[in-house]
Amino acid sequence: MINFALFGAGRIGSIHANNVARHPEAQLVTLYDPYQDNADRLAGELGCTQMTPEQIFASDDIHAVLICSATDTHADLIEQAVASGKHVFCEKPVDLSLQRVRQCVDRISQSDPKVMVAYNRRFDPNFQALKQRVEAGEVGTVELVSIISKDPAPPPVEYIKVSGGLFRDMTIHDFDMSRFLLGEEVVSVSAQASCQVDPAIGEAGDVDTAVITLATASGKLAQISNSRRASFGYDQRIEVHGSKGMLVAQNVNENTVVAYNSDGVTSARPLHFFLERYAAAYRAELDSFVRCLSGEQVELPGMDDGLKSLMLAEAALLSYQQARSVNLAELD
Amino acid sequence: MINFALFGAGRIGSIHANNVARHPEAQLVTLYDPYQDNADRLAGELGCTQMTPEQIFASDDIHAVLICSATDTHADLIEQAVASGKHVFCEKPVDLSLQRVRQCVDRISQSDPKVMVAYNRRFDPNFQALKQRVEAGEVGTVELVSIISKDPAPPPVEYIKVSGGLFRDMTIHDFDMSRFLLGEEVVSVSAQASCQVDPAIGEAGDVDTAVITLATASGKLAQISNSRRASFGYDQRIEVHGSKGMLVAQNVNENTVVAYNSDGVTSARPLHFFLERYAAAYRAELDSFVRCLSGEQVELPGMDDGLKSLMLAEAALLSYQQARSVNLAELD
Amino acid sequence: MINFALFGAGRIGSIHANNVARHPEAQLVTLYDPYQDNADRLAGELGCTQMTPEQIFASDDIHAVLICSATDTHADLIEQAVASGKHVFCEKPVDLSLQRVRQCVDRISQSDPKVMVAYNRRFDPNFQALKQRVEAGEVGTVELVSIISKDPAPPPVEYIKVSGGLFRDMTIHDFDMSRFLLGEEVVSVSAQASCQVDPAIGEAGDVDTAVITLATASGKLAQISNSRRASFGYDQRIEVHGSKGMLVAQNVNENTVVAYNSDGVTSARPLHFFLERYAAAYRAELDSFVRCLSGEQVELPGMDDGLKSLMLAEAALLSYQQARSVNLAELD
Amino acid sequence: MINFALFGAGRIGSIHANNVARHPEAQLVTLYDPYQDNADRLAGELGCTQMTPEQIFASDDIHAVLICSATDTHADLIEQAVASGKHVFCEKPVDLSLQRVRQCVDRISQSDPKVMVAYNRRFDPNFQALKQRVEAGEVGTVELVSIISKDPAPPPVEYIKVSGGLFRDMTIHDFDMSRFLLGEEVVSVSAQASCQVDPAIGEAGDVDTAVITLATASGKLAQISNSRRASFGYDQRIEVHGSKGMLVAQNVNENTVVAYNSDGVTSARPLHFFLERYAAAYRAELDSFVRCLSGEQVELPGMDDGLKSLMLAEAALLSYQQARSVNLAELD
Repeated sequence: MINFALFGAGRIGSIHANNVARHPEAQLVTLYDPYQDNADRLAGELGCTQMTPEQIFASDDIHAVLICSATDTHADLIEQAVASGKHVFCEKPVDLSLQRVRQCVDRISQSDPKVMVAYNRRFDPNFQALKQRVEAGEVGTVELVSIISKDPAPPPVEYIKVSGGLFRDMTIHDFDMSRFLLGEEVVSVSAQASCQVDPAIGEAGDVDTAVITLATASGKLAQISNSRRASFGYDQRIEVHGSKGMLVAQNVNENTVVAYNSDGVTSARPLHFFLERYAAAYRAELDSFVRCLSGEQVELPGMDDGLKSLMLAEAALLSYQQARSVNLAELD
Repeated sequence: MINFALFGAGRIGSIHANNVARHPEAQLVTLYDPYQDNADRLAGELGCTQMTPEQIFASDDIHAVLICSATDTHADLIEQAVASGKHVFCEKPVDLSLQRVRQCVDRISQSDPKVMVAYNRRFDPNFQALKQRVEAGEVGTVELVSIISKDPAPPPVEYIKVSGGLFRDMTIHDFDMSRFLLGEEVVSVSAQASCQVDPAIGEAGDVDTAVITLATASGKLAQISNSRRASFGYDQRIEVHGSKGMLVAQNVNENTVVAYNSDGVTSARPLHFFLERYAAAYRAELDSFVRCLSGEQVELPGMDDGLKSLMLAEAALLSYQQARSVNLAELD
Repeated sequence: MINFALFGAGRIGSIHANNVARHPEAQLVTLYDPYQDNADRLAGELGCTQMTPEQIFASDDIHAVLICSATDTHADLIEQAVASGKHVFCEKPVDLSLQRVRQCVDRISQSDPKVMVAYNRRFDPNFQALKQRVEAGEVGTVELVSIISKDPAPPPVEYIKVSGGLFRDMTIHDFDMSRFLLGEEVVSVSAQASCQVDPAIGEAGDVDTAVITLATASGKLAQISNSRRASFGYDQRIEVHGSKGMLVAQNVNENTVVAYNSDGVTSARPLHFFLERYAAAYRAELDSFVRCLSGEQVELPGMDDGLKSLMLAEAALLSYQQARSVNLAELD
Repeated sequence: MINFALFGAGRIGSIHANNVARHPEAQLVTLYDPYQDNADRLAGELGCTQMTPEQIFASDDIHAVLICSATDTHADLIEQAVASGKHVFCEKPVDLSLQRVRQCVDRISQSDPKVMVAYNRRFDPNFQALKQRVEAGEVGTVELVSIISKDPAPPPVEYIKVSGGLFRDMTIHDFDMSRFLLGEEVVSVSAQASCQVDPAIGEAGDVDTAVITLATASGKLAQISNSRRASFGYDQRIEVHGSKGMLVAQNVNENTVVAYNSDGVTSARPLHFFLERYAAAYRAELDSFVRCLSGEQVELPGMDDGLKSLMLAEAALLSYQQARSVNLAELD
């Protein structure tokens, strides 16, 4: 049985905590959230104690921490957890500052505990099936990866302002999936973007629509398209085109009912947003982390993946600002 | 909190027991299975006690029973449970004998406890969505219901021999769904059937492939097609055709990955069998039962539904044997 | 070059005449229609002469006749054409009277000219592909054929009154397709039907909704569902289920555009009716006929197919009227 | 009746000539091809005369010319045809040299005859339906256009060498479709590309895989993905994402048959290549040209479209070579 402590009892923290609670080989022992209301609500719901961060790091009973707190606390908490011998399951991103992420990577590089940066989409059953079939050689050599990733509606502008911007906040998932599927590191990034959904997003200095192209040293290409608004729901599709064929992971729809009438043939919408679409992925990523801690050979996204996806976001921003391809080596 | 006792710790009993265990407002207190191995395994897994039937019926702590034991014990257990004031969640069928079911219905007709005959398909989220849209008038007047219902592979002949035959064992689900969707009682049944899948099934006196047509007094029609073997997986589709259009519930596939290659465009198979296909339905039916016991207004399939679907099975068998349409009134 | 004469310059005659006109190895020489307006219009459009039936049968220049006139003239024209050595392409049905069809079959049985009864659906490219794959063994042994066949809207009641009724007019196509795909003659028929679409159809003594089951000697089953009204368009689907899998021919849609919006994911409707849906089939059947006359080995539906599909219609009517399965041998 | 002369009796010339021959208001009077075998074959097949270019331009009987000859003859023939008062239907591209196209545009700018640059995809019935629905406002404001355009297999390297390269030869269609659908002129182009399909293509100085992003002044984006090889067939899909939803034109498949077996659920492949996929488009574009000449108000792609798509190709090539976004104004 693996004992977890949770930092951050908000929406995503609650999801992971519930998945721990339901896992037969894990339990949530305690939690901490500076917003006492959040902390009380979730501790009550799950019947766990509350501790201060100091108590958590000092406790011998706790084997692992779930970091679901505000982004600017992630790197500190990772370092403290690792220093106190706890394994880490950290929500993305590690930090919005590339420098801070690099510092964090350096500081924990010699340590034993496992650190997982929780890129949930890698664990979606459909994308897992896609990945396994790509690795099994079903499309031959991968040549072109296409990721369509659109949110149903933009977040509040207040969120946009602290999000780090579209590339660091939203596209970062797609950067990680590109790396996951290309099977070769990206060397150059080219991004075009604009503000088409909501002028307030532009006034906040951000974009809401973007197309990004990635290239590897051998010439493999990936293209990402993003929008902060898809009126029909969460648009999350991936195509992997290779020498022998193509594999596509389609959207997951609300149900299988199809209506035939004078308007045409209508099937259900895609699941609305990430909580619905990636519910199974959240369970699977927690389970993978537990299995890894239990000694199984499980490949987890780690600090290096957190660093590299942020580098791609930085490069995309630079490319967009300077209207040119950016070589990753420029960021070294 | 509603306390359950379970009769029958086999495959389907285990499913319901686990759903009780995970339900926030229900718990499994105890179980009974004459096969001690089954009983020990599940009681250990779920951390519940074991009691004899007598102890269960005598216990004031137990509010409801899950009847998942052998078919020939269902009617007796229903009667005993109701007599001792327990609510009943009973796996289908009530009994294979129409006479016995009628007797059971009579005996408990004046009693208070709720009795649910657990026709799981009614709770499948896709079929629920279909039903709600039919009731909302989306297809206008229902004219023709088509149910495709095929198992991936036939059960062992030993099971066939005690199953009551295709119509009572397998089609009975489709009879219930037809009634659920037609919105009007069936008055006549016509069945054609044959043994095409496995000669051993024919030698056991049963059929493995069948087409059944139902008609209501106003002329609404339902057609059911059954096979004991669909090599591609569990084929579970429903079409409701009405004056304004058609609603179709398609199969649920293993995932959303589609492969494009020189063979064509291939999507995943339907989920293999009922454990996978109806996992959500099993959770939802248990939840509906709990909500009903908690005082919510929830429509549950009851003894009358158990009786009527068996009558349709009897009528289908008679129709097949005598090569004619059978009027339900003949069975009175 | 094969020279054709056309009887009947109405809608379907015009289609076949145009297909002849466009065929590189056929030409329309002349036509006859007692409605002079029809005759003048089509002869003008296609630049052909007009002749009386007597002149047509006496002409040495004419190799084949297209019989697209009123149903009650078909059998006579077939007999006269064959007697004068012309090949025959005849629209279905041969006649609405089983006795008359048998007489016609007898009278021409010793003759040389080819007689094709034009069951257009056999030539639909999708159904052709289905048939070829069934014959190639892709589904193993055929066990169950399902035909969904619904018109977008009922014809005028005046047409219904002279149509011979649903089974002889509409289902007859599905009977032919069942025979085409089962690969074994049907021995028994069971039909249920009702009038749900338009009471005027019932007042005219006909039904508008029907479900028919066919069985062969070895136990293969076919089910047909018919409605005179599918508000979403022409519903023409076929499923062939066998020991190794299933092949399905889906509807043909108006185009491939799919709309994603808050209502769901909507693709185009099925092509509206037979003129659109079977345009390619009409071209292909004419081409098959021409190729057959040119000496190629082509399998065409003939008088025997016309006779057998009408027998199935008669049996279905009897089954419906007497609420019992009807054995085809009863009609001998 | 509009009388056509054809230049170039090769594959595409033969298609257009046959469409003229079948058109009720057009006829092919004569043709010219310097390869006498081609000329003799097609003239024999269609029963038309042969003339020299000089005779064609001098003939009062000829109203319009179809230019399907080698690319390097297009601009000259356009100029001569226009000078002699003939309308022009010219296969794309006008020329591979931007300078030559500009010169041609200048020289004919004051002339009366209609000049159509035959971008066939604009006339595909699916893309037409897409375009009409976009113009009707169904997706609201267009924000992002995605074009997937992949050939089934690369052409011979000999063709590659004279093709002008991927951007001018293949992507040029997608540039035109982007302009057709964006509803606003493109101002900047960014292209990434590589040689992944066949090293011989790289040795010939070309690429075979590319991703191109276009942007308009208001920030609308278009992304194009190209490959010279899609092993499953011709991949021709378009997505238009806007403020109110998305419209997608899917591939056109060989037929509607779907196979269910233990491998999954397999539908037919996309139509193999442009001759099959765009057969209806070729007919429709010829018909549009004829209707325009007959005085109907029909919007046709013209010299300006030929010029602008070539400018986008030039910009893409420059972008790829210099690893930066290229502003269209740079090409002025």
